[in-house]
Amino acid sequence: MRAMGERIRVLIDGREFEIKKGTPLGEILKLAGVDGAIGGKVGNRILDLQTPLFEGGELKPIFKGDPESLEIMRHSLAHIMAQALKELYGTERVHLGVGPTTEEGFYYDVEVEGHTITEEDLPKIEEKMREIIRRDYPILRKELSREEAIRLFEDLKERYKIDIINRIPPDEVISVYQQGDFVDLCKGPHLPSTGEAGAFKLMSVSGAYWLGRSDQPQLTRIYGIAFWNEKDLEERLKFYEEAKKRDHRRLGRELEFFLIDEEVGPGLVIWLPRGAVYRRVLEDYWKEEHLRRGYHLVYTPHVGRSRLWERSGHLEYYRENMFPEMEMEGEGYFVKPMNCPFHIAIYKSKVRSYKELPLKLAELGTVYRYEMSGVLHGLLRVRGFTQDDAHIICTPDQVDDVIRETLDLALSMLKDFGFEDFRIYLSTKPEYATGTDEQWERAQNALRKAIEELGHDYEVDEGGGAFYGPKIDVKIKDALGRFWQCSTIQFDFNLPERFDMTYVGPDNRKHRPYMIHRAILGSIERFTGILLEHYGGLLPLWLSPTQVRVLPIADRHVEYAKRVFSELERAGFRVELDDREERLGAKIRDAELMKIPYVVVLGDKEVETGTVSVRGKREGNLGSMSLEEFIDMLRRKVESRE
Amino acid sequence: MRAMGERIRVLIDGREFEIKKGTPLGEILKLAGVDGAIGGKVGNRILDLQTPLFEGGELKPIFKGDPESLEIMRHSLAHIMAQALKELYGTERVHLGVGPTTEEGFYYDVEVEGHTITEEDLPKIEEKMREIIRRDYPILRKELSREEAIRLFEDLKERYKIDIINRIPPDEVISVYQQGDFVDLCKGPHLPSTGEAGAFKLMSVSGAYWLGRSDQPQLTRIYGIAFWNEKDLEERLKFYEEAKKRDHRRLGRELEFFLIDEEVGPGLVIWLPRGAVYRRVLEDYWKEEHLRRGYHLVYTPHVGRSRLWERSGHLEYYRENMFPEMEMEGEGYFVKPMNCPFHIAIYKSKVRSYKELPLKLAELGTVYRYEMSGVLHGLLRVRGFTQDDAHIICTPDQVDDVIRETLDLALSMLKDFGFEDFRIYLSTKPEYATGTDEQWERAQNALRKAIEELGHDYEVDEGGGAFYGPKIDVKIKDALGRFWQCSTIQFDFNLPERFDMTYVGPDNRKHRPYMIHRAILGSIERFTGILLEHYGGLLPLWLSPTQVRVLPIADRHVEYAKRVFSELERAGFRVELDDREERLGAKIRDAELMKIPYVVVLGDKEVETGTVSVRGKREGNLGSMSLEEFIDMLRRKVESRE
Repeated sequence: MRAMGERIRVLIDGREFEIKKGTPLGEILKLAGVDGAIGGKVGNRILDLQTPLFEGGELKPIFKGDPESLEIMRHSLAHIMAQALKELYGTERVHLGVGPTTEEGFYYDVEVEGHTITEEDLPKIEEKMREIIRRDYPILRKELSREEAIRLFEDLKERYKIDIINRIPPDEVISVYQQGDFVDLCKGPHLPSTGEAGAFKLMSVSGAYWLGRSDQPQLTRIYGIAFWNEKDLEERLKFYEEAKKRDHRRLGRELEFFLIDEEVGPGLVIWLPRGAVYRRVLEDYWKEEHLRRGYHLVYTPHVGRSRLWERSGHLEYYRENMFPEMEMEGEGYFVKPMNCPFHIAIYKSKVRSYKELPLKLAELGTVYRYEMSGVLHGLLRVRGFTQDDAHIICTPDQVDDVIRETLDLALSMLKDFGFEDFRIYLSTKPEYATGTDEQWERAQNALRKAIEELGHDYEVDEGGGAFYGPKIDVKIKDALGRFWQCSTIQFDFNLPERFDMTYVGPDNRKHRPYMIHRAILGSIERFTGILLEHYGGLLPLWLSPTQVRVLPIADRHVEYAKRVFSELERAGFRVELDDREERLGAKIRDAELMKIPYVVVLGDKEVETGTVSVRGKREGNLGSMSLEEFIDMLRRKVESRE
Repeated sequence: MRAMGERIRVLIDGREFEIKKGTPLGEILKLAGVDGAIGGKVGNRILDLQTPLFEGGELKPIFKGDPESLEIMRHSLAHIMAQALKELYGTERVHLGVGPTTEEGFYYDVEVEGHTITEEDLPKIEEKMREIIRRDYPILRKELSREEAIRLFEDLKERYKIDIINRIPPDEVISVYQQGDFVDLCKGPHLPSTGEAGAFKLMSVSGAYWLGRSDQPQLTRIYGIAFWNEKDLEERLKFYEEAKKRDHRRLGRELEFFLIDEEVGPGLVIWLPRGAVYRRVLEDYWKEEHLRRGYHLVYTPHVGRSRLWERSGHLEYYRENMFPEMEMEGEGYFVKPMNCPFHIAIYKSKVRSYKELPLKLAELGTVYRYEMSGVLHGLLRVRGFTQDDAHIICTPDQVDDVIRETLDLALSMLKDFGFEDFRIYLSTKPEYATGTDEQWERAQNALRKAIEELGHDYEVDEGGGAFYGPKIDVKIKDALGRFWQCSTIQFDFNLPERFDMTYVGPDNRKHRPYMIHRAILGSIERFTGILLEHYGGLLPLWLSPTQVRVLPIADRHVEYAKRVFSELERAGFRVELDDREERLGAKIRDAELMKIPYVVVLGDKEVETGTVSVRGKREGNLGSMSLEEFIDMLRRKVESRE
């Protein structure tokens, strides 16, 4: 029971007001003389004007255009879309799931009896939404008892809403919002009326399991984006257009990089010859960089005994992400979701002395993790991927140097791929944690010092570390301004205990080492997806599967073309000769489609003068030059990883 | 019922004898005036003197010293060993399983109640066997009815023998052999008496499941070897001694090449840093050789959907060799036992024209196959291994060239690893086969022609091919004279049908291509085991994880040693610097133990004259030379793969 007579103190724009507890936010703002707000922020909560306030504190009014205002508006657009669906397909045929906001818009998961919503339906739905906005219904909040709420949604045949009501804790208020004759179970916040909604566009339709569980019915997720004005919306749509052009799934197919085949299995990547050429270059580069820094490369199996995963704790804490168990001769086996236990087995294969530390074991280790097939996405979210993994085992004294060197390696490798803009996050000790205070402090200091010494800004996620140790995450910014999580440097105070890892110190006694997991690219598959989108498929020269294509104009130039081809190949470049009987225009177009960095066109003039005419995919026509000059240019670009 | 009155005609040494059907072999030989034989051969069967003959034909007497005579003698030694066990541990406590001969000796699988036989028991057992031989018991054959046999072995508490009797087909004769008071169920053949047995030695004790099935009791297998005289035995023991020294499991541990860890799982190989260095060199060489010959490298996942393995036929024909199924979202998945279906998916990822053929897809693909843990053996028999796999898809016209080129690649690569002596086998069409006669003929001709054109001998295994196509197998001879199966070139008329693989011909119509599976090394793991044993761990320079170790004699030589180390590293060699404060002798010994091909010793003289003093593990002391000369020598050896 709420005591309605009590009073609370609210601070607005530095002025304090004493008001009755339970007063709606809109009334409070009116009292304070604040005009035109569409909601307010109290602590971290965004509330609409109709929501009663029960706690005092600072109240920040939210106006149209404030960043927080978008969430209110997008939330109302989800309801407007739901109402549009009901009007289009009939109230009783449309069953609503959940309809939250997203970073750029909103979605609603719905079930429409007897009709499968496709992207072709979207314009019609948008039209109906605009009509509802024009009608400018007031959006009214109402609180109901649990029984009233259940009766209401039973009448509306909203089975998923009843499922939600049954999950609401007993002490929580149940509210609904109504606009016209449409009513929806909702916590809010919402606009005062539908007419206040901004510019929006419905973007896509996809499948989504109810509650995200594959044993539940599949609903249709209709996704839209929304901004306060048409200009912001247009800009965002242009971004999407660009992103679509760069979609790595499309590029992967067109450039023949990879294949995901239904018959082989979802989320399982097959690297086609061209993609494999690129991958080999990347892997060789990665191995060389690691060998130069004193890492040891190892190979470990893709399967391990259950008792190994039991000891590592994966069966207790990570099993839902693992592929199912296989049983042979009464023993369980799992395909590996991580490489750690294998690297630990290597560490433990002999007695280790402090003189051997830091020991850095690195592997391009292919791991398999269970993901629902619905969330898989090209190379960016898969079921099998190759981690560029390493484990560093060191003494406590070595921690600072090890971390600095590791972060330095990560950033310098990411730069080699053309990324310059990083966001670095430091996650520290959570409430429940393993390891001693001394370990946490030493580790966190090492992480902090490394970032600072390398001159980078960073954000701290206080208490955001895993229970087994603090970490650094590095995100890279791509050409479209998106940030992607790549590198992680993660302490682990747990596994050295579980596996009883030790080293013999100068005192001839056994000590517990520090262990650090780290990946730089994250996974080869995901990083390749990012690279393809970042470069729109036109990879830097050193990574391109084909670096040069040689195009003789006519038959009589083929002999010279073969010579040029051989010279380039001898110089160590990846070259193709296109001696098909096709028009030059067609040959050039084909090379462009395959995003080949350079084509060399050879006709009468080139044969006569012994030159090559070079056209760069990035630079355009570079004119005639001697083959030597061209080779020098290529060499320079490969060496500088331009 | 046997008609004892009938007569048969037997040919001995070109003379024909008519004898009563059912006459024991010994009597027949006596009749023919043949003296001193211990058995005879009729067709493919080796019979002893007591076995009655029911069919005519040529009878070849077997004398002591004939190759076939060993089998008779070894068989009797198995009985002598069984008798020795009964005398040592008590008749009723020893239960006999099976006791066959092997290529070099014999074994018996036994269960001894209340005692676990170990290798420490072997001298005692040998002693008792020699005693039984000295007693010179006649070995007597007797035929029993099924009921008599069961009663006899029930009395003897020989439960496994009863199991065997129950498996004998009803129309087969049941015989036992007796020597002294020891009697055993046995088909023979045997010596006339125990005193005729030759020189033998018991070698090992291991576990063996009854009937080879892991759900049956485990017996103890006692294994021995036997020859007619001490000299042959000594020679063989020397070979074993040498093989033991070269045992790749021991070398793999000592040289830190690999690890098989109980906790990780039997048959699952972890490559330690040193082994991984070698493996990377091998893999890079392999990739370069393949790229040079127009192969495309690809990467494929380690897991595939059940429907893929169903389509390929693996689930129908190969399931017992596969790891168990994993189920996710109602779909089955298997860890791959082969790479073929993935390479086929790549082939089928676009419409293929005859202009693209032959298409050669290659992968160092790690596959997993179920093997009983009892048969696993170091790197030679494992559960996970990396095939150096390729699939060649071509038109019928290309078959000859493709096969010649493939066999040539196989032999030239094997030669690069130092193998010169090959045995080549051609396996042809079996009775039940898929594919047309034309396909078989064309394929077999291509295989035959390729071997002949490359100037090699070969053996034909008529009808020994797989049902889906003929093949070539190549075995290599190692330093101990053993032959190891490595390369296989295998036609497949089955998978192109199952996966409906096609290419568009010059006639613009679809045609069925030929497909060839091939591996050259077989598997990287197994080939490494062979290499380690062949070279006794001292790998050729180009494959050695560490090529040179630099040893300063005293502290004052360390600076110069570092310079030498850097120069060698810059020249591209894998070098280590041993600057521990140890005596030179100890440093040299450690380098020898790690089988490092060259050590460079640096003392006052070397510092003064700016030279290096070189000691080769193979060549011994090579004296002083300039660093340049040394580098030249190394370079020559690496390039020639000496």
